[in-house]
Amino acid sequence: MKEIEGRIRVVIESVAPEIDSGYFPVKRAVGEKVAVEADIFADGHDSITARLLYKKPHNEKWQEAPMIFIENDRWRGEFIVEEVGIYTYTLMGWVDHFKTWQNDLKKRVSAGQDIGVDILMGAEYIEEASKRSSGEDRKRLQEIAHFFRAESEKEEIVSISLSRGLSELMDRYPDRRFAKRYDKELSVVVDRPKALFSTWYELFPRSCPYRSGNHGTLKDCETVLPEIARMGFDILYLPPIHPVGKTNRKGRNNVPDSEPDDVGSPWAIGSEEGGHKSIHPALGTMEDFQRLIERAGDYGIEVAMDLAFQCSPDHPYVKEHPEWFKWRPDGTVQFAENPPKKYEDILPLNFETENCRDLWDELRSVVLFWIERGIRVFRVDNPHTKPFPFWGWLIKEIKRDYPDVIFLSEAFTRPKVMYHLAKLGFTQSYTYFAWRNTKWELTQYINELAKTNVWEYFRPNFWPNTPDILPEHLQYGGRNAFMMRLVLAATLSSNYGIYGPAFELCINEAVQGKEEYLNSEKYELKNWDWDREGNLKDFIARVNKIRRENPALQSTFNIEHYEVDNDNLFFYGKYTDDFSNIILVIVNLDPFHVHSGRVKIPVHKFGIEPHQPYLVHDLLGDDKFIWQGERNYVEINPYISPAYILRLRKKLKREMDFDYFM
Amino acid sequence: MKEIEGRIRVVIESVAPEIDSGYFPVKRAVGEKVAVEADIFADGHDSITARLLYKKPHNEKWQEAPMIFIENDRWRGEFIVEEVGIYTYTLMGWVDHFKTWQNDLKKRVSAGQDIGVDILMGAEYIEEASKRSSGEDRKRLQEIAHFFRAESEKEEIVSISLSRGLSELMDRYPDRRFAKRYDKELSVVVDRPKALFSTWYELFPRSCPYRSGNHGTLKDCETVLPEIARMGFDILYLPPIHPVGKTNRKGRNNVPDSEPDDVGSPWAIGSEEGGHKSIHPALGTMEDFQRLIERAGDYGIEVAMDLAFQCSPDHPYVKEHPEWFKWRPDGTVQFAENPPKKYEDILPLNFETENCRDLWDELRSVVLFWIERGIRVFRVDNPHTKPFPFWGWLIKEIKRDYPDVIFLSEAFTRPKVMYHLAKLGFTQSYTYFAWRNTKWELTQYINELAKTNVWEYFRPNFWPNTPDILPEHLQYGGRNAFMMRLVLAATLSSNYGIYGPAFELCINEAVQGKEEYLNSEKYELKNWDWDREGNLKDFIARVNKIRRENPALQSTFNIEHYEVDNDNLFFYGKYTDDFSNIILVIVNLDPFHVHSGRVKIPVHKFGIEPHQPYLVHDLLGDDKFIWQGERNYVEINPYISPAYILRLRKKLKREMDFDYFM
Repeated sequence: MKEIEGRIRVVIESVAPEIDSGYFPVKRAVGEKVAVEADIFADGHDSITARLLYKKPHNEKWQEAPMIFIENDRWRGEFIVEEVGIYTYTLMGWVDHFKTWQNDLKKRVSAGQDIGVDILMGAEYIEEASKRSSGEDRKRLQEIAHFFRAESEKEEIVSISLSRGLSELMDRYPDRRFAKRYDKELSVVVDRPKALFSTWYELFPRSCPYRSGNHGTLKDCETVLPEIARMGFDILYLPPIHPVGKTNRKGRNNVPDSEPDDVGSPWAIGSEEGGHKSIHPALGTMEDFQRLIERAGDYGIEVAMDLAFQCSPDHPYVKEHPEWFKWRPDGTVQFAENPPKKYEDILPLNFETENCRDLWDELRSVVLFWIERGIRVFRVDNPHTKPFPFWGWLIKEIKRDYPDVIFLSEAFTRPKVMYHLAKLGFTQSYTYFAWRNTKWELTQYINELAKTNVWEYFRPNFWPNTPDILPEHLQYGGRNAFMMRLVLAATLSSNYGIYGPAFELCINEAVQGKEEYLNSEKYELKNWDWDREGNLKDFIARVNKIRRENPALQSTFNIEHYEVDNDNLFFYGKYTDDFSNIILVIVNLDPFHVHSGRVKIPVHKFGIEPHQPYLVHDLLGDDKFIWQGERNYVEINPYISPAYILRLRKKLKREMDFDYFM
Repeated sequence: MKEIEGRIRVVIESVAPEIDSGYFPVKRAVGEKVAVEADIFADGHDSITARLLYKKPHNEKWQEAPMIFIENDRWRGEFIVEEVGIYTYTLMGWVDHFKTWQNDLKKRVSAGQDIGVDILMGAEYIEEASKRSSGEDRKRLQEIAHFFRAESEKEEIVSISLSRGLSELMDRYPDRRFAKRYDKELSVVVDRPKALFSTWYELFPRSCPYRSGNHGTLKDCETVLPEIARMGFDILYLPPIHPVGKTNRKGRNNVPDSEPDDVGSPWAIGSEEGGHKSIHPALGTMEDFQRLIERAGDYGIEVAMDLAFQCSPDHPYVKEHPEWFKWRPDGTVQFAENPPKKYEDILPLNFETENCRDLWDELRSVVLFWIERGIRVFRVDNPHTKPFPFWGWLIKEIKRDYPDVIFLSEAFTRPKVMYHLAKLGFTQSYTYFAWRNTKWELTQYINELAKTNVWEYFRPNFWPNTPDILPEHLQYGGRNAFMMRLVLAATLSSNYGIYGPAFELCINEAVQGKEEYLNSEKYELKNWDWDREGNLKDFIARVNKIRRENPALQSTFNIEHYEVDNDNLFFYGKYTDDFSNIILVIVNLDPFHVHSGRVKIPVHKFGIEPHQPYLVHDLLGDDKFIWQGERNYVEINPYISPAYILRLRKKLKREMDFDYFM
């Protein structure tokens, strides 16, 4: 026992957030709040004071925020993150003898006890504090102590003793000799705002000839930028743009044998034309790519690249680094498989190789190569099939120099694996959203993502479809279902994306009995008619505009579920901390029938009296309703619109009379 | 990145039990099980194998227990603790290429794929394992590999490949080069069985003259040992037996001024006759005390001492170590207070003293002093008013050399403080039981103690009364309430105690408006009539006999709550792991009225078919009932008995006909 340690009487435990004993950081975007709670207590009846300490990135100075007592020994403090990078936080607490003295004095005075000795004790505390202070404060503290000792009027001494002024003054010079400092320093990875609020559009550039039958090019992609921007997307994600392997190339509909004119899967990366640092010659040149990035930027769109760390049998790595692959006893290289399924066009990298150090370095160089060419967003293909330590290392390495880089994890696998990848540093993650359809399923899942500690490190990105996934409800629910799923994705999650134009064209032909596209674009060129009748472009543009204009929809974690007495209606709300933006969403989960019900609005929470009318404005259909009280009636016809996205406006009755009732 | 680390693909997280990041140990008594769960997974689709590693006290060798997959990446393993002391445990997991190969082979064979190359790969794994093996195993593995390579019949190779024999053989020689070892070693404090199952009797020795008016002695105490043993108690706890201070001694009913013949509170420790290492001369000598310990031992009773680390103003410490006390500006020593309440007869020790090292050493020497005189059980008075680091240090110091010592924490304070003391090492803890009366309150509280992770480190000890606490329901409920509360304490918690003979004599006169005894024994000698009519001695003896004879009641944490359709009836059960002892308890919580209801027995859990009759034997009233199915009727008249303590016996119908129906 060290002499000091024995006198540290405060305990700090059950700190939240603290992921896996603090081994992993939590995540925030610039402007978000970090609220820290902990159990803080000491022996006996003495008062304690606690502070939240935090450090900005590349800053050695701790800043302090107060911790406020909640109840049952639980305390809470908070700070706002303002810079991209890694923040650190910890806690400190100490027995506050002066505060104890103040509380006791109050009780003694109430009980009419003599306080002569107590005044002398108070004077001592104040004198001690004065020694820790300087300037005006020091002078003031000395004066007060002197006044206490000068046999002044007791009532006046008590009044000064319990005054806010003295409390604040004393609070600036606490006796922290035996303060407990929490034994861990925890961290927050702070990302740029797009990590939390982003709208993705996935596009195969080779199908982008904009009405022609040829292999599309990066240059062609420029022509669709205005339309993608008009729809309101701010990330354009391109599947791999590298040379595609020829050996064992897959034909249309994933058949093992390809025809000479088949283009193959872009995820079978690498040929004699190059590997992960090359661009498929049929798509264009590096200059074309950099111009596309620039043009997209002009429209407020960032280009996201695919990171698929696997090779076609023709990839240069196979010859240059045979040790990075698994070789079978018959002398052939091991292709990807999940028995009995075989993916002969793709070779996994062997991360158990003795040269894994070289392999890791090379893969890092791939990421840096594209970063140097202007890419800051990566969608990572199947990260769950590469070792976890690799991702932890890679993301840390990259973000050290480029903290603004965003990595989206495309892991559709078991929940704990997906969450672990997020803990290791992925900025955003794909989810099970595509398979969550009923009100119960959606409620459970959203609560898991937003209301357990998962939200601290896992940022969901909701996709109603991907080139790999055409869910059953889109296959059968038709256009109405596409609209409904878009509203859900876009309002439940602040990060969402679609694979287009298959989505806005409501393409729903699937491989028999599977949730996969028939004639999938993964294996063939498509000649999309972007303006086909019934397309959802205007609808999508409207939804994305609502997202941009309503800050409540720019977070995922502020969601609250509300009651409605019809299981086909799904009702939830989001609002800003200051209630300046309140959005209520009611979705008809049945794409075939009209449903109605009585919703329950938590008016008390919004500061609305039961008798007070308020306005709800459907931002989707532009209707306005005057509602009153908790229970109000809604009816949703999916052939007109799948949902209400209501902005609630609380106004004084007077204003409403003149303003809204017109 | 170290080369090896990069190839460690398994993750181990969310380990349970693990208290506060492993900072605190869990607790078990000899014979109890430690079941460890964790999320264990790797990237990709490879199979994994995991082991639970554990070490006995003073043993450097790790033993291994298998971990079994449960679901959702959760694994579980267990071991039984057999020795008093500190066990250590951790986990290990690795990618098991051979197991993966077996699973893949099975799938390939089902799909009718060629397995020529796979057989060669299997041979390689077996050869590698043979190099790690020796003796017969090595020979056998080499033979199998040879057989695989010898172009043998494929069907036979597959049969051997998937055989349990080969799996077990290979399991003995795993390839652990890249095994993940969990990065913490966690610990289990293993106590002797009495830590988990004990029955306490608190007695003021000075009131033990067995029908005479004089100050009782330790010698007198010997005369009541047979009766205490007959009632079934195995720990006799004595409030402080040290000299009592005279300065500011409290009079009867805690009045500030005492009369010359007042005996004072035994917790006001110390006078010119000595301090914490002395015995009050009126009680007898050290020899008397040691003889009492011996005699009690003859009856299977251990004597427990009180550790009250505080002093009367007359304690020798005050003169010898004035620096261990707080001095006020007026030159007086600070007495205990909780403003506006004052305890002038007691001085707290000042643990913030600069000489705290000396103070700690002295207090340790007090504990060792009594250990050397044969004491192994301490009831610790108000531990929550002394610093936490002190207790952590003291208990560790003592248990290092005397791991069989039991410390009972008498902290009636806020829950987190009580739990923290338990984490620091207290063997047992007082609880809020005295203030939990309704079915809802009891259910909530028991679930908190037994069904959250609190049970891993906090062993409850239930007391229906103490010299400080005469709860309202005992004041008003009379004898019926005393019986009801005894059954609750004795069957809910495997550790319980009473303050006698006030309890068995149903003393219920309280200070007006308080939950305190009128004419409390804390401040005066009592002349109890141990055989007074209406005493509960036989009833208590019966309940304690039931506890001794039924192992299901010898744990607190095996409790399950069952349904009954009457909120005045409280129904719960406990059973041994092997169902050989099943106890169902139904308590009438209303001491005034008969209550009846339909209980719901979880017959399916006990392996009883819905149509099958079974016997329930009320061990309290000795009635037997034949029940059938889930729902059965009970009626409890509190004037006859407060409860049923049913032993359920599941028998074949045939046996029952001849055996039970007589």
